[in-house]
Amino acid sequence: MQLYDYFRSSASFRVRIGINLKGLVPERHFVHLTRKGGEQFADAFTAMNPQQLVPVLVDGDETMNQSLAILEYLDETYPSPPFLPTKPAGRARVRALALAIACDLHPLNNLRVLFYLKNEMGQSDEARNAWYRHWVAKGLAAFEAALAGDARTGTFCHGDVPGLADICLVPQIFNAKRLECPLDAYPKVMDIFGACMKLTAFDAAQPSKQPDAE
Amino acid sequence: MQLYDYFRSSASFRVRIGINLKGLVPERHFVHLTRKGGEQFADAFTAMNPQQLVPVLVDGDETMNQSLAILEYLDETYPSPPFLPTKPAGRARVRALALAIACDLHPLNNLRVLFYLKNEMGQSDEARNAWYRHWVAKGLAAFEAALAGDARTGTFCHGDVPGLADICLVPQIFNAKRLECPLDAYPKVMDIFGACMKLTAFDAAQPSKQPDAE
Repeated sequence: MQLYDYFRSSASFRVRIGINLKGLVPERHFVHLTRKGGEQFADAFTAMNPQQLVPVLVDGDETMNQSLAILEYLDETYPSPPFLPTKPAGRARVRALALAIACDLHPLNNLRVLFYLKNEMGQSDEARNAWYRHWVAKGLAAFEAALAGDARTGTFCHGDVPGLADICLVPQIFNAKRLECPLDAYPKVMDIFGACMKLTAFDAAQPSKQPDAE
Repeated sequence: MQLYDYFRSSASFRVRIGINLKGLVPERHFVHLTRKGGEQFADAFTAMNPQQLVPVLVDGDETMNQSLAILEYLDETYPSPPFLPTKPAGRARVRALALAIACDLHPLNNLRVLFYLKNEMGQSDEARNAWYRHWVAKGLAAFEAALAGDARTGTFCHGDVPGLADICLVPQIFNAKRLECPLDAYPKVMDIFGACMKLTAFDAAQPSKQPDAE
């Protein structure tokens, strides 16, 4: 198994957590997203993933992209410990929480989007930071409400074992802290973040602990 | 089963296609996203979905949001016809194609984002349309390359039966057409779009054929 990733990419961070939870040890390849104009734009990488985004996972003959698709693949091929509960309604809830971050929060604050706001729309750093914090605040407020209003929330997003929603939440909180977004309004989110970070699988996956960290 | 949706929402469009493919007939509730300041912001709807986004599906005691989570739920509870292939690698490919649209293309062109660009960043209609077309072009070019470079692509995105990737692709093409994005560079995408639109499940789900269409 081979993982192509970048220390600061939060989609990569998700997959690193998932790989750690499953107890897997892939060969690592580092794709620097800003050096040399972006190594993800190189022909060899583009052939693996036309989207030119990390992470990419190679397992035998199979090359996969999109962090959530990779995590579902890992869960189907290495079922223990599971990332999703067993019943369809619980699975839908956990996936919805994961997607609330992966679809409605993270893509808006991705590097390529921030570059567009600067280069094509002439937005200042201040305006871009306000944009970033706006979507973090909107996303985390809804996430907090979804957690607080549901009896299935436990030590983690769904019960007392970490799963797909926690895997998506933690990298997002790292991003929010890096951009100094206020987080006091999300006590349940931050409790869960704290519980996750006590686990080696989460802790060892964080950006600063990767071999390519700067 | 009850579906809360809005005719023009492409996440709702996805779920309508999925429901049609499964042969289900939910009770419909229409949530107008721009009238009265946005009916999704009403307390009753916010209680169902703190994200204040459509669609929402209610099945018995379960209330679900996020189109892809809903579609996976439908696939788990009504397995025929399946939205995903049987083997993990094929499932990962179909999910990755679906997520390439649901995560990396659609959220950038969502109504609330276009409003932000206008109201908070003072961007002109022209600049917002350029933004819209930029992400469509970037997303569809990668999607076309992923289809063209893989022998598993068939009449539909993965083989010769429609699935989760097609369900996400079709509403995105409707959006691209509405914003007059050029589509000639994506022949495989457009062939698949054409094949989908010959099917009643896709055709009947389109915005102009909904009871709340304007």
